[in-house]
Amino acid sequence: MYAKMHPLAEEKVFKDPVHKYIYVQDETIWSLINTREFQRLRRIRQLGTSYLTFHGAEHSRFSHSLGVYEITRKIISQFERGGYSDWPQDEKLVSLCAALLHDVGHGPFSHSIEELFDTHHEEWTCRILLEETEINEVLRRVDPSFPEQVAAVICKSYERPIVMSLVSSQMDADRMDYLLRDAYFTGVNYGTFDLERILRVLRPHKGQIVVKESGMHAVEDYLMSRYQMYWQVYFHPVTRSSEIILRQIFRRAKELYGSSYGFAWMIGPLEQLFNGTINVDGYLSLDEALVQTAFVQWQKEADPILADLCRRFLNRKLYKYVTMDEANETLWQQIREELQSVGLHPAYDLEIDFPFDLPYDVYRPGAAISEKDEKPPILLLDQEERLSEISAKSDIIRSITGLHRGKYHLYFPEEKLRGTAADLSQTVRDVFGL
Amino acid sequence: MYAKMHPLAEEKVFKDPVHKYIYVQDETIWSLINTREFQRLRRIRQLGTSYLTFHGAEHSRFSHSLGVYEITRKIISQFERGGYSDWPQDEKLVSLCAALLHDVGHGPFSHSIEELFDTHHEEWTCRILLEETEINEVLRRVDPSFPEQVAAVICKSYERPIVMSLVSSQMDADRMDYLLRDAYFTGVNYGTFDLERILRVLRPHKGQIVVKESGMHAVEDYLMSRYQMYWQVYFHPVTRSSEIILRQIFRRAKELYGSSYGFAWMIGPLEQLFNGTINVDGYLSLDEALVQTAFVQWQKEADPILADLCRRFLNRKLYKYVTMDEANETLWQQIREELQSVGLHPAYDLEIDFPFDLPYDVYRPGAAISEKDEKPPILLLDQEERLSEISAKSDIIRSITGLHRGKYHLYFPEEKLRGTAADLSQTVRDVFGL
Amino acid sequence: MYAKMHPLAEEKVFKDPVHKYIYVQDETIWSLINTREFQRLRRIRQLGTSYLTFHGAEHSRFSHSLGVYEITRKIISQFERGGYSDWPQDEKLVSLCAALLHDVGHGPFSHSIEELFDTHHEEWTCRILLEETEINEVLRRVDPSFPEQVAAVICKSYERPIVMSLVSSQMDADRMDYLLRDAYFTGVNYGTFDLERILRVLRPHKGQIVVKESGMHAVEDYLMSRYQMYWQVYFHPVTRSSEIILRQIFRRAKELYGSSYGFAWMIGPLEQLFNGTINVDGYLSLDEALVQTAFVQWQKEADPILADLCRRFLNRKLYKYVTMDEANETLWQQIREELQSVGLHPAYDLEIDFPFDLPYDVYRPGAAISEKDEKPPILLLDQEERLSEISAKSDIIRSITGLHRGKYHLYFPEEKLRGTAADLSQTVRDVFGL
Amino acid sequence: MYAKMHPLAEEKVFKDPVHKYIYVQDETIWSLINTREFQRLRRIRQLGTSYLTFHGAEHSRFSHSLGVYEITRKIISQFERGGYSDWPQDEKLVSLCAALLHDVGHGPFSHSIEELFDTHHEEWTCRILLEETEINEVLRRVDPSFPEQVAAVICKSYERPIVMSLVSSQMDADRMDYLLRDAYFTGVNYGTFDLERILRVLRPHKGQIVVKESGMHAVEDYLMSRYQMYWQVYFHPVTRSSEIILRQIFRRAKELYGSSYGFAWMIGPLEQLFNGTINVDGYLSLDEALVQTAFVQWQKEADPILADLCRRFLNRKLYKYVTMDEANETLWQQIREELQSVGLHPAYDLEIDFPFDLPYDVYRPGAAISEKDEKPPILLLDQEERLSEISAKSDIIRSITGLHRGKYHLYFPEEKLRGTAADLSQTVRDVFGL
Repeated sequence: MYAKMHPLAEEKVFKDPVHKYIYVQDETIWSLINTREFQRLRRIRQLGTSYLTFHGAEHSRFSHSLGVYEITRKIISQFERGGYSDWPQDEKLVSLCAALLHDVGHGPFSHSIEELFDTHHEEWTCRILLEETEINEVLRRVDPSFPEQVAAVICKSYERPIVMSLVSSQMDADRMDYLLRDAYFTGVNYGTFDLERILRVLRPHKGQIVVKESGMHAVEDYLMSRYQMYWQVYFHPVTRSSEIILRQIFRRAKELYGSSYGFAWMIGPLEQLFNGTINVDGYLSLDEALVQTAFVQWQKEADPILADLCRRFLNRKLYKYVTMDEANETLWQQIREELQSVGLHPAYDLEIDFPFDLPYDVYRPGAAISEKDEKPPILLLDQEERLSEISAKSDIIRSITGLHRGKYHLYFPEEKLRGTAADLSQTVRDVFGL
Repeated sequence: MYAKMHPLAEEKVFKDPVHKYIYVQDETIWSLINTREFQRLRRIRQLGTSYLTFHGAEHSRFSHSLGVYEITRKIISQFERGGYSDWPQDEKLVSLCAALLHDVGHGPFSHSIEELFDTHHEEWTCRILLEETEINEVLRRVDPSFPEQVAAVICKSYERPIVMSLVSSQMDADRMDYLLRDAYFTGVNYGTFDLERILRVLRPHKGQIVVKESGMHAVEDYLMSRYQMYWQVYFHPVTRSSEIILRQIFRRAKELYGSSYGFAWMIGPLEQLFNGTINVDGYLSLDEALVQTAFVQWQKEADPILADLCRRFLNRKLYKYVTMDEANETLWQQIREELQSVGLHPAYDLEIDFPFDLPYDVYRPGAAISEKDEKPPILLLDQEERLSEISAKSDIIRSITGLHRGKYHLYFPEEKLRGTAADLSQTVRDVFGL
Repeated sequence: MYAKMHPLAEEKVFKDPVHKYIYVQDETIWSLINTREFQRLRRIRQLGTSYLTFHGAEHSRFSHSLGVYEITRKIISQFERGGYSDWPQDEKLVSLCAALLHDVGHGPFSHSIEELFDTHHEEWTCRILLEETEINEVLRRVDPSFPEQVAAVICKSYERPIVMSLVSSQMDADRMDYLLRDAYFTGVNYGTFDLERILRVLRPHKGQIVVKESGMHAVEDYLMSRYQMYWQVYFHPVTRSSEIILRQIFRRAKELYGSSYGFAWMIGPLEQLFNGTINVDGYLSLDEALVQTAFVQWQKEADPILADLCRRFLNRKLYKYVTMDEANETLWQQIREELQSVGLHPAYDLEIDFPFDLPYDVYRPGAAISEKDEKPPILLLDQEERLSEISAKSDIIRSITGLHRGKYHLYFPEEKLRGTAADLSQTVRDVFGL
Repeated sequence: MYAKMHPLAEEKVFKDPVHKYIYVQDETIWSLINTREFQRLRRIRQLGTSYLTFHGAEHSRFSHSLGVYEITRKIISQFERGGYSDWPQDEKLVSLCAALLHDVGHGPFSHSIEELFDTHHEEWTCRILLEETEINEVLRRVDPSFPEQVAAVICKSYERPIVMSLVSSQMDADRMDYLLRDAYFTGVNYGTFDLERILRVLRPHKGQIVVKESGMHAVEDYLMSRYQMYWQVYFHPVTRSSEIILRQIFRRAKELYGSSYGFAWMIGPLEQLFNGTINVDGYLSLDEALVQTAFVQWQKEADPILADLCRRFLNRKLYKYVTMDEANETLWQQIREELQSVGLHPAYDLEIDFPFDLPYDVYRPGAAISEKDEKPPILLLDQEERLSEISAKSDIIRSITGLHRGKYHLYFPEEKLRGTAADLSQTVRDVFGL
């Protein structure tokens, strides 16, 4: 289907710290940016609780979404200038819209909340595209079937694989933007790589986006940036600590809500989230401002666990942690029992974390097609038009492929454990350094 | 009074995108950062509504406050290495604390709210330092009189002028940090200047901080950065439009609160703000998360003016504007009357703005001492130890000194005026281009 | 005349630290870069002796020339995308060639040598384009009259003024590149400005390149960069000291050559330069490598003045200087006489310098058309298509316009004067601080 | 031995594009920089012929040497502030001098010339320190034995290993500076890493410089920069082509010099190099200006091979190359014979290159102590004060350790081979794509 572009009379420009400028040339894109659903992304942080570790990481999904759009625009523009016949030119608008909107269904602190309430931001994205929203209205103006088309790209059921390869692969516009952007705002300069060089070596090729072989070292550099950002930023143990507290707050509030407890302060969208009646309209008013406001109010709730957790989160009195190389269920069970016996609450006063429960991975070459959420590997195209998977050529990439090395972290409220230390066994005291 | 430093066993480090690292070496500073009052600054944006113009400008007063502390630390450290006798070494801790805490009394979107509710962030800062807060407790641990000392520096009644000159002058750590930081996060690279060079030419001299004459061009560069940031960022007409809407929201809500109107949604701290009973505790829960949450809820209020204004602010449907070189009260009165006559609300549907109502100014050489809030000028120290005010030596600085050139902007809801255009006079239609 | 482009089968790319990449898309440009005359620019430094002050300033006219080409390419490309009818599309190749080649006639340390030997690099550029060279051969392949066309643009006698306005004005590609490049290589970050923004506001308009009015602050920023680079880099008194010694070396060598002195070491191209017989072929072998080699050899010449000057230059034993606000011919005459009387050489042991003998100026608004070498002013284009000269609108630009404030510097070999101080009058000793 | 520092009355500062500023605080360092031997490094490029591939790479060993000094100064300053007892404070001056002077014996295009004339820059460095030079004089002013001490550090025979570990290891100030500097001047941003973070994790520990374990990822990042710089810059095949031509020029000139050939142009220092009589004085006048001047002159030599090679080098008419995965001596022998039979010169018209003949290696963990020129591995220090070699902990570093993957390149003058293609076998024509 050919989705017609409607050029703006005058190009619009956003100043962006990462890409310098973001260029909007099409009426549909401009209108999408100005919808209430897209503007809401200003109230959702890109990196969740990471700002508690890296104070600069206060950037929103709004700016990231513009960045993904801009990189996609640049890739397509390079394909058009190169005149590659493998790029279907009439897929430009659907690609740009999918790039811009792919994160529109994210809620506040998504990764923590999704797990607890079993919601998925991709599903919300599709509902926001397809139900009665300003976004839906703008897309329908292009063509009545256009909302479904854009949703199909995002949900990976679109007929032309090359469009999905552009929007979602292991080196897609999404990952490229967030690496650069997260590096910029955290101030961690490990995450930078040469975007301009990467863009120059991408090629459309038989339904996929591949990389010219001469660009192998540029891809290595990009993947090393991912690797470094994992360890320096995304898996930072202090950030994990804040996520754990956040999850505990929601767990506790949901428990209380389902019990006879009467909240001194409550607000509609949270209530709907807790009782499972939330719809698109409610979801759209659920943002990080609301979550933080609830936490500020809940500091005064009668329930001491909830009030304490909220204070911890807001005032950054995070859990401390100790590290263990191996799992040890027996020991962990012993700790839980002792905590219980001294009057602590094992479900809140101990959290054992293994960082690889996370939705990040550096690079996975051999993804079975059937696996859900699996993204296609990075392919090199040599001068004889042969393709090869990149880790077969690069020692470095092979070395980080599927790397699942990690350690266990035991998070705990230090001052509480210290207060009961006299009643704990020496074994347990040793674990926590008490 | 000699405030004793308490070195930390191990230096603490924050990763900062502007200064690379922020170094904390003293126990008092570390404890202050970890108070709830200081952590609250994470929920107050440094640039108010500017993020609606520059989407990267989502940085908080928390990161700015750390930056001001770091620059102050660097200046003092350079003075100590230089061994200048004009720098009183026992003023280090009070200077660092004042630098860190000077903005702790800022509320959400301060500039707009202060005007409307006649509050002043400096007063709140002093109350937060002096009343029962975690900050007060930390400061008292240094010495019972230490909270008063730090407050005196911030409120400019401290006995030693050089400390105030360090923390508050026309080239102080505050301005240096916000120029660099605002430039970084907006992506506008006009605001950068060579901080390292400026620091190298500062000298303590008879109760003031002055500049070695050889650093004149570096100061010119710094002032040109200020000048450019004014025009590109701080006075940006789109930002002004969003501030106007914000102020109208508060004005309307306060009006309604004082009337018989019953709010469908209200929250304690706002109520206290409206009825003038807010105290330190209430003020500390008044942050931008709360304000945005209120706006999200108020979109559904029965009052159409309030609901419309909130939608405009959140969804960035801002007022358009036209520009006029000169004031023209007669014309403006005519416009107001016509708007009234066609059923519009002149107090909300028209706002005339002159940018120099703002708390910024590029540089003012001849500040009369008596003027409140007036900051000392920048002085050059030549090799013969003579001082001269910098605009006497620099043509460029003289050219921007006290520059008050500006234009009037008339802000209005375009679609509303367009809807009534048929009933407006040609004169008024011409003004708004209808 | 329409000069046909010959697109390369594959775009060529140069990695450039200033522009990231330089893109060559045309066969003619590629061939010109590969001529021996253009490659020779690698052996001519962009900033002459400035590397003795700023050790990073070792960049060549080769890289600057590529940069001027790239900026010109970007401007034209923006004009083409904008579809402006005032830009004559068939002038692209001649513009690009003129941009690339405009400095090809520069000799070693041009500014010093041109003055002494009364040669002009622009004339040499034209001779290199028009006589028997590889460049001439490449240009003739486009069209037999093409060398003359390109030369006409460079020498400002081309029929279409807009092409000359592009290549040579007060905000041309030449100046934009050298400001950015000199800032990058010296490490002085005053010289940066937002090139991308400037390019976006340039417009072809009735035979000139003008600036959209909304770009005024960007132009201010560019001119302030110029201003700062003058004072920090181009007029740096240490650089002036090295230029003075360089000029004295050539003056002395020429004197000796014209006398009965027999050089122990001499080389063809210098001999031709001294006796005025140098032709294009000789000129092309006159580069900075040759000049430095001569100086290394001349350190062992029998003439003590020449040998000493060469040692000073190579080993950076530069002249010291004192500063005077006003000219004082009487005093200077007295100094010269006293130096003579104590056995020093006033023509070598004293040099009085006023920095505005230099071929730089920040901005000159009112250039009379008749003046040679005068470049057109910067014009703003408002929304009603009216033009105004920029200093009429900008206070800042007016403040630096035609600014000729400067000081006199007296350069001298300190240890020599110190050695004779006992025989000098107190007046003279005071001048030099002896 | 305690080498006394002599603080300068006022700190001297160099503006440096890589480190922003270079600070000189000691009289001895200042005097060393001002010697003729050190100033000569301005005429030796840091990256040899790489400027023919990356036109920005025109930076000299002078700026690199200052950079190595500055990094060393920063490391020592951090050690001093940390108060680590394992750092011998009286070794400061000898360390700084060794850092500054370690490259002072480099000749023009060292790597090519050293091989051909069997000279070693380290030996020249020591001779320059120990024979009659200005450097020797400055060092002797500290103490008569001081020149020997500094030379001992550079030649790795100093009594205290920690000083040599500082100046020469696999993560020393030398490597750190050249990676950052070469990345800056080539414009290749792969080479950047977080210097400030690396400096913070270095520790003196029992006679070695080691790395805190928490800094492992920072070291990975540094080694990946090395890896990328190898492939993108140091082993670039175009640079190799220019080095081959350079070596051929010297080989040919030496051959001719040893024969009955009479050079039309010759110069003392080259003559001494060819006949093996060169001494320190001659060596010091052998710089890249002299080499380039010789090449310019030799373009007109009667010997066609020499003249052609010089033209190729100066005008960048480099050899083309083809790539082979494996060595094939039989084929290569056949090619040589055929070239001979058609009148070409196999010793000049074919050069087979394998990049690992080069003095670079990314990282080598297990260096046998006995091996000459072997640098100690990088050691991690954990919280229990245990040391481990870094590749035992890091998968990534292990993946690049001792990596010797490379390809053979056959370099040849394309137009010559093409001219004789009709007389070559199909096999040979296929190899060269003729």
